[in-house]
Amino acid sequence: MKVFTDHCRRSLESIKEQGRYRTFTALQKRVDSFPYYVRPDGSRILVWSSNDYIAMGNHPVAVAAACEAARVMGTGAGGTRNISGTSPVHDELEAELASLHGKEAGLIFTSGYVSNQATLSTILNTLPCGPAHSWQCFSDAKNHASMIAGIKGSRAVVSIFRHNDLDHLESLLRAAPAEAPKLIAFESVYSMDADIAPLAGICDLAEKYGAMTYLDEVHAVGMYGPHGGGVSERDGVAHRIDIIEGTLGKAIGAHGGYVTGDADVIDFIRSTASGFIFTTSIPPMTAAAALASIRHIRQDHARRAKLFERAETLKAMFDAAGLPRIPSVSHIVPLHIGEASLCKAVSQRLFDEFGMYATPINYPTVPRGEERLRFTPGPLHTDEMMTALIDALSKIIPLERRRAA
Amino acid sequence: MKVFTDHCRRSLESIKEQGRYRTFTALQKRVDSFPYYVRPDGSRILVWSSNDYIAMGNHPVAVAAACEAARVMGTGAGGTRNISGTSPVHDELEAELASLHGKEAGLIFTSGYVSNQATLSTILNTLPCGPAHSWQCFSDAKNHASMIAGIKGSRAVVSIFRHNDLDHLESLLRAAPAEAPKLIAFESVYSMDADIAPLAGICDLAEKYGAMTYLDEVHAVGMYGPHGGGVSERDGVAHRIDIIEGTLGKAIGAHGGYVTGDADVIDFIRSTASGFIFTTSIPPMTAAAALASIRHIRQDHARRAKLFERAETLKAMFDAAGLPRIPSVSHIVPLHIGEASLCKAVSQRLFDEFGMYATPINYPTVPRGEERLRFTPGPLHTDEMMTALIDALSKIIPLERRRAA
Ligand SMILES: Cc1ncc(COP(=O)(O)O)c(C=O)c1O
Ligand SMILES: Cc1ncc(COP(=O)(O)O)c(C=O)c1O
Repeated sequence: MKVFTDHCRRSLESIKEQGRYRTFTALQKRVDSFPYYVRPDGSRILVWSSNDYIAMGNHPVAVAAACEAARVMGTGAGGTRNISGTSPVHDELEAELASLHGKEAGLIFTSGYVSNQATLSTILNTLPCGPAHSWQCFSDAKNHASMIAGIKGSRAVVSIFRHNDLDHLESLLRAAPAEAPKLIAFESVYSMDADIAPLAGICDLAEKYGAMTYLDEVHAVGMYGPHGGGVSERDGVAHRIDIIEGTLGKAIGAHGGYVTGDADVIDFIRSTASGFIFTTSIPPMTAAAALASIRHIRQDHARRAKLFERAETLKAMFDAAGLPRIPSVSHIVPLHIGEASLCKAVSQRLFDEFGMYATPINYPTVPRGEERLRFTPGPLHTDEMMTALIDALSKIIPLERRRAA
Repeated sequence: MKVFTDHCRRSLESIKEQGRYRTFTALQKRVDSFPYYVRPDGSRILVWSSNDYIAMGNHPVAVAAACEAARVMGTGAGGTRNISGTSPVHDELEAELASLHGKEAGLIFTSGYVSNQATLSTILNTLPCGPAHSWQCFSDAKNHASMIAGIKGSRAVVSIFRHNDLDHLESLLRAAPAEAPKLIAFESVYSMDADIAPLAGICDLAEKYGAMTYLDEVHAVGMYGPHGGGVSERDGVAHRIDIIEGTLGKAIGAHGGYVTGDADVIDFIRSTASGFIFTTSIPPMTAAAALASIRHIRQDHARRAKLFERAETLKAMFDAAGLPRIPSVSHIVPLHIGEASLCKAVSQRLFDEFGMYATPINYPTVPRGEERLRFTPGPLHTDEMMTALIDALSKIIPLERRRAA
C-alpha cells in the first residue's frame, strides 16, 4: 500500500537524520575464541557488549547438552506446550527455575520479553477485588520495554515512580485507593544505568500498602546471590517477592524467559496467558542447554567471583584513564558520551581502527543526551584486552571530554 | 498477595468445573522414532498432533546444522540483534525467507506469535494518512490469538469479518471511511478448521478498496506451493500480498517467526517494533537449523506430495469408518466431538488404552460446542498406524455418534 510505504520511507529518513538509524553488525560468536567474534571476512573482533555475561553460551556443559538434545530430540518442539510440545526437559527446567528462586513453581516463555509482557498483562487484566477496582500498577520509570508493553496492554491504572526512589513510590502508594489491588513492577539490575534497586525497601512498602511485587531479574540471574538466584537471593528477599521473572538468554547462555512464584499464581498464568498458550514451546535443545547451564552455574561460585573482579578492574582502569564512566554498582560498565552521532562515531572507530566492538546505546533505549557505550566485561576478558581497550578509547575520546569526567 | 492468590485459585476451580483445565502430557520427541514419542516411563506413544508437519525437526540436515552451529557458535546469541546478537546466519536466514516468498526483505522474530503481535501493533499504531485517520483493520473472525493481540494492542478501529466471507468483508470495506488507511489481516490455512482462505478474492477486494494485506502463512509455509512458499505461492498471489508472516517452528521444524515484504516496510518494522528490538535474538543454532531446513524444503517436492497423500488417505479412512470428520481442504484432519469433557475423555482413552496421542482442542481455542480432536498425519505416518488409529477410534467413539456424521 503506497501510503504506508511512503510513511515508512519518511520515518526512516527522519530516524537517519537524527543519527539513530541502526545497522546491525554481523559478527559470528565463536565457542573457540569468545569474546573474540569473527566477521564475515574472517577477521576477529573483540566484543565488549555481549550479554552472555559469564560465557555460559560457550561452556562445554551447555554445548554438549544442546547437541545431545538435538541428536535425540531434534531441532524443534513441534507444538505448543498443550499440543505435544511439552518434553520432560521442559518440566525439569521449570522445576529447576522454581528451585533456583526458592519458589513453588516456574513457567517458561519463548523469551524474557514475552514473559514480562504476557504475565503482566494477564495479571493486570484480572479484577481480584471486583469489577469496581482496576489494578493500580506502580512502575519504575526505567523499567524495560517488555514490562511497559505488558502494563500498557492492560486495564491497569499506571503510576510511574522515579527510578529507584522509595519516597516517591510511597507517596504514590499512599495516594492510591486503599481497596484497589496494587502491583509494584521493577528490576533488580538496570542494565543501561548499571544500578540496582533497593529491593528490601520496596518489599517493606509493598507489605505496608498490601501490594504485590513483580521483579525482573533478567540482568542478575546466574550472577548475583550465592547460587546465581539474582539480587533477590543476594539480599535475602526472594521470599518477599511474589513473582520473579528472568531470561535464559543472557547469563544462562541459551534463549527463552520465565516467571516463578506461588503454585496457584503460576498455574493461573499457565492456564490463561495468551502469550504463553498460543505459541510453539522452546526447542528441547534450547531447554536442555539452559538446564545444564543453570545446574552448573548454581555451583560455579568462582565464575561469579571472576565476573565481579573483572568488572571492578575495568572500572578502576577507566577511572585511572579519566574516562567519563557512569557510576556502577553492578557488573556493567557504561561510558558516558552524550550525543547520538558521536556515540556512533566512537563505536565505529573502535571497530574500524582497533578491532573492538561496543554497541552505541542511543535513544529510544536511553533518553537523548544520555547516549553511552556499554561494556560488559566477563570472566574471559583479560588484563591485556582491557589495557588495549583503554589505549584505544584514550586515543579516540578527546582529552577535554576525559578531563570533564 | 493474598487477594490475587485467592483469585487465581477461584479461576482455576472454575476452569476445572468447566472441564477445560489443561494438563500438559510430557512426551519426549525422538529423532529415531518420530512420530513415536517416549514417555518418562520409557513407553512409546504414537503422536497424531505434532505441528512438525513434514518431520523436518528430525531431518538429518536440520539436526546436523543445529549441532554444528552449537559447536561453533554456542547455545545462545548473547544479545539483541543490535547489541552483538546478529550472526551472519541471521542475515542469511532473513534473505532466504524473503526469497522463499518472493519479497525484498525478511525479518526474524523470536516466535510466530511475536511476529504477528509486534508487526500488527507497530503498523496499526502509525498514522500514515495524518492524525485524523486511524487505521481501519479488517480481521477474519477466526484469526489466531497472536494477530488479535497485535490488533487489540493498537489504536486501529477493528471490523471483524465472518470467516472467509468475501461478501461480508466487502460490505465492511465499503462502509469504512474512504480516506482512512486500511489493513486486511487473515490466514491462509486455518489450523483448527482445516480450511483455506480465498486469497485471490481478498487481494481483489484489497486492490479495489486500497487496503494493505497481511497474511499469516504459519500453517502453510514449507507445505503449500511448488517450493513451500505457502498458499500464496500455490495460488500465484504472493506478489499481491503486502506482508507475509510465518513461523520457523512448525513445518520448518525449528523455532522463531518472521515477516517478509517490501524493503522499506520491513526496515521500518525492524527500526521501530518494540517486540523486535528489545529481545535477545534467536540462537545461531536455531537459525542454522531453520536455514538448512528451508533450503532443503524448497527442493524436496516429494515430501510435500507425501504429506498430502497421507492426509487424503486418513480422511478417506475416517469417512469409510463413519467417523464425524470436519470437512478439510488442507493437510489437517479434525474430528468433531462437540463437548469438552467428552473430548478429553476420548483423548485420554486413546492414550491410556491404545498408546496414541491426539490433543483435545477445547475452548478458548475453538468455540464451545465445537470441541474436536485434531490429527496431523505426516510423511512418516504409515498405513498401519492409520488402520490402528481407526480401530481405536471406532472402539472409543459410540456407534450412534459415528452414524450421525
Ligand atoms: C530488563 C530486561 N527485561 C527483559 C528483557 C527481555 O529478555 P529477552 O532478551 O529474553 O527477551 C531484557 C532484554 O533483552 C531486559 O533488559
Ligand atoms: C495461525 C497461527 N499464527 C501464529 C502462531 C504462532 O506461531 P509460533 O508458534 O511460532 O509462535 C500460531 C501457532 O502457534 C498459529 O496457529
